[in-house]
Amino acid sequence: MAKAPVLTPRADDFPRWYQDLINKAELADNGPVRGTMVIRPYGYGLWERMQQELDARIKEAGAANAYFPLFIPQSYLTREAEHVEGFAPELAVVTHGGGKELDEPVVVRPTSETIINEYFSKWVQSYRDLPLLINQWANVVRWEMRPRVFLRTTEFLWQEGHTAHATYEDARDYAAHIHRDVYADFMTGVLGIDVVLGRKTPKERFAGAINTLTLEGMMGDGKALQMGTSHELGQNFAKAFGTQYLSRDGRQELVWQTSWGASTRMVGGLIMSHGDDDGLRVPPRLAPVQAVVLAIKGDDAVIAAVREIDDRLKAAGIRVQVDDRTDTPFGRRAVDWELKGVPVRIEVGPRDLESGTAVLARRILGKHSPGGKEPVRIDELDTLLPKVLEEDQALLLRQSRERREARTSDVRTRDEAAEAATAGGWARIPWADLGPEGEARLAEQAVTVRCLVAEDGSVPDSDDAPGTLAIVARSY
Amino acid sequence: MAKAPVLTPRADDFPRWYQDLINKAELADNGPVRGTMVIRPYGYGLWERMQQELDARIKEAGAANAYFPLFIPQSYLTREAEHVEGFAPELAVVTHGGGKELDEPVVVRPTSETIINEYFSKWVQSYRDLPLLINQWANVVRWEMRPRVFLRTTEFLWQEGHTAHATYEDARDYAAHIHRDVYADFMTGVLGIDVVLGRKTPKERFAGAINTLTLEGMMGDGKALQMGTSHELGQNFAKAFGTQYLSRDGRQELVWQTSWGASTRMVGGLIMSHGDDDGLRVPPRLAPVQAVVLAIKGDDAVIAAVREIDDRLKAAGIRVQVDDRTDTPFGRRAVDWELKGVPVRIEVGPRDLESGTAVLARRILGKHSPGGKEPVRIDELDTLLPKVLEEDQALLLRQSRERREARTSDVRTRDEAAEAATAGGWARIPWADLGPEGEARLAEQAVTVRCLVAEDGSVPDSDDAPGTLAIVARSY
Repeated sequence: MAKAPVLTPRADDFPRWYQDLINKAELADNGPVRGTMVIRPYGYGLWERMQQELDARIKEAGAANAYFPLFIPQSYLTREAEHVEGFAPELAVVTHGGGKELDEPVVVRPTSETIINEYFSKWVQSYRDLPLLINQWANVVRWEMRPRVFLRTTEFLWQEGHTAHATYEDARDYAAHIHRDVYADFMTGVLGIDVVLGRKTPKERFAGAINTLTLEGMMGDGKALQMGTSHELGQNFAKAFGTQYLSRDGRQELVWQTSWGASTRMVGGLIMSHGDDDGLRVPPRLAPVQAVVLAIKGDDAVIAAVREIDDRLKAAGIRVQVDDRTDTPFGRRAVDWELKGVPVRIEVGPRDLESGTAVLARRILGKHSPGGKEPVRIDELDTLLPKVLEEDQALLLRQSRERREARTSDVRTRDEAAEAATAGGWARIPWADLGPEGEARLAEQAVTVRCLVAEDGSVPDSDDAPGTLAIVARSY
Repeated sequence: MAKAPVLTPRADDFPRWYQDLINKAELADNGPVRGTMVIRPYGYGLWERMQQELDARIKEAGAANAYFPLFIPQSYLTREAEHVEGFAPELAVVTHGGGKELDEPVVVRPTSETIINEYFSKWVQSYRDLPLLINQWANVVRWEMRPRVFLRTTEFLWQEGHTAHATYEDARDYAAHIHRDVYADFMTGVLGIDVVLGRKTPKERFAGAINTLTLEGMMGDGKALQMGTSHELGQNFAKAFGTQYLSRDGRQELVWQTSWGASTRMVGGLIMSHGDDDGLRVPPRLAPVQAVVLAIKGDDAVIAAVREIDDRLKAAGIRVQVDDRTDTPFGRRAVDWELKGVPVRIEVGPRDLESGTAVLARRILGKHSPGGKEPVRIDELDTLLPKVLEEDQALLLRQSRERREARTSDVRTRDEAAEAATAGGWARIPWADLGPEGEARLAEQAVTVRCLVAEDGSVPDSDDAPGTLAIVARSY
């Protein structure tokens, strides 16, 4: 008799598989207030590694971290007309503080453009103060009607970058730099997700931006997930907040700005990109635990060998954890590590020790693939593992690319695009053939233009550049 | 004519000096909502280093990071009677979300014991799940009547640890472990502040705790600052939330808990411990920038030398920054780095280069002290600097200890204690001579018992252990 599957199979019910995986791999729980989440230690470990990798790239791009208040006076939000229109329906409002009703209610930040501009307008005086490059790691709140853990939560964690520049060109180039050299570099290089880089249509732009660059990933069910965005804000917020500088030739000029963000939603993207019916598969470069060393039994010799392997792998720079909870059945522990998607397991039992070997199980390659589970010499583990981890990192990215290519079709009509998207894939259609009207019609079927791309795969300079293609899909 | 001082001298007006320093060193600004603050990049850099150092020690103590929601149902707060009494007056309340009035208002977390217990009660089933050791880095909100930047702000950043244990002893020992091996180790070893470790009197305990351990630092004006606390919660929250486990012998038992926190208040403590009339002095082990290499002039040779020194010091593992903004007068830049308290400046000018030297200015030792500002050979900088930085680290701790010893007096009566505290120092008085009644009387003069210590400087096991001394002071 076949064993009951650990998770609802993806093919049966993808959303339920996602929720099952999050529960059983102990990634997160629903919070008590609707739409909030509790990020459990293993889920938070994934986020911490994302933070480390992104933070290093953000600093490399010259931005410094700072922190702005959670509470924003309601009046700030209203200063930029499109911005308030975009965010007003999602705001959480504090009306009482310290036991009294507040004179002016304050909103819990949904994003920080307004409060940051209030300070930029004080800090920026002269061209010497530009570019001003700031990032903040913070929680933000957007009241969600249809919440889903990690993907759309009332409160989420993110980084939001905010910059001010002397010229349009400098701001435009910086937004593109973040898009490509921070976000895309991280998402392809570390997350192993073959994101498509494009620009949003005017309909899908950030509220208050003149251009929004996006990174879209294809999930396991063929839907799209927006993994991060980088906005050119033009001078919209500068006008609203009077953010000006004295130019080299002595004139007061408005600054040009960007903002850009990536959030805990990426954890959801990671799960839905790489997860399989046995659980999560974490890319080795991201993994908080790259290798787990399991003692099959509690014999002294086994425990000693496990400790020795742990030391040896740590010395080789591998993030390793020992599992010597031998009062829990080995099979249950193995299933748990599969669920959590730790890239490699090293299983050590008394019989293996006699021959100086351990069993290496590769979660990403898969235990049923050739080389997916086989004995290896313990004294070769420290040289073998770095190679295995890099191979498996590359494999995830290749699988992500292959899925995207296989499930993207080139079409010429709106109906074909809608059909491809509804069937669980992406459609690529000339933007000139679709246009804003076609986009509006697709929306009636819950299908959206995820982004515009150039024929050669680059990011178009404008919405109406000749040869621009629209990527059309259902999305999270 | 003497130049106007950069800051209000400490001796003239300590609180004003503090605010001046924060403004001029660009550490923080006041936020738009009363009591909130904007932490500027240099101030945030100090906090990031504190986070790194504390986080490593917290992980070493076995706790894993997680994240719990910002919003807590109001009903949770009321379950533990003392807790709600302690926090009710300080709560910020969200009454509207997504454009509607909420059915149940939610509070913005002032601390997370309640929401964390709600989840601990689900996650903890058996003795095998214990100890459960969790930490979270987060913002919290407590409506402040008399806010002061970094010291008492309506919103602040902190870490809060929360743990559950099978026995009273295990919880007690863990709270003490955090107190000593995480907090004290960090504060003395990295911040260079000679904190006193003690236990709070019942009056000063955390709302809901059975014991609060504290670390108290003496500031430059002789007042005390509570730098961090570690609480034994007993079974108070476990009872309120039903946090139970199945013991080895098959009985349902309530867990024993701890919580512990340290916040951005430490930045205020750093300023008030080590700052002088020229600005901040940052301990080298903490400093985000340990050495700044200044080009006095923009000559090619100077710029080349500055770059070479930068490379060489980076290779030696020193956190170094170049200042080649030669269009700003050198004097102004030097003053700015003094304000920011970067431990050493290396000043490179054309004349120095001829002799292969640069001027080394030691901010902590002081430019007027022997060896505080003198030429050094450039090719010896990478071996010299690590020694200088460690010497200056030790010097700060020694100065902190000497101040505390010099300004602490042993007294026998409550009046003497009040007098010593009011004069800007600490008093040490037998707790048996003061007692809760004396403590209440002192409070009328805004003087408090900061903590109880044993005669040998250790932390007493109980409030009424023979020989227990009370440390009495004014405080922030």
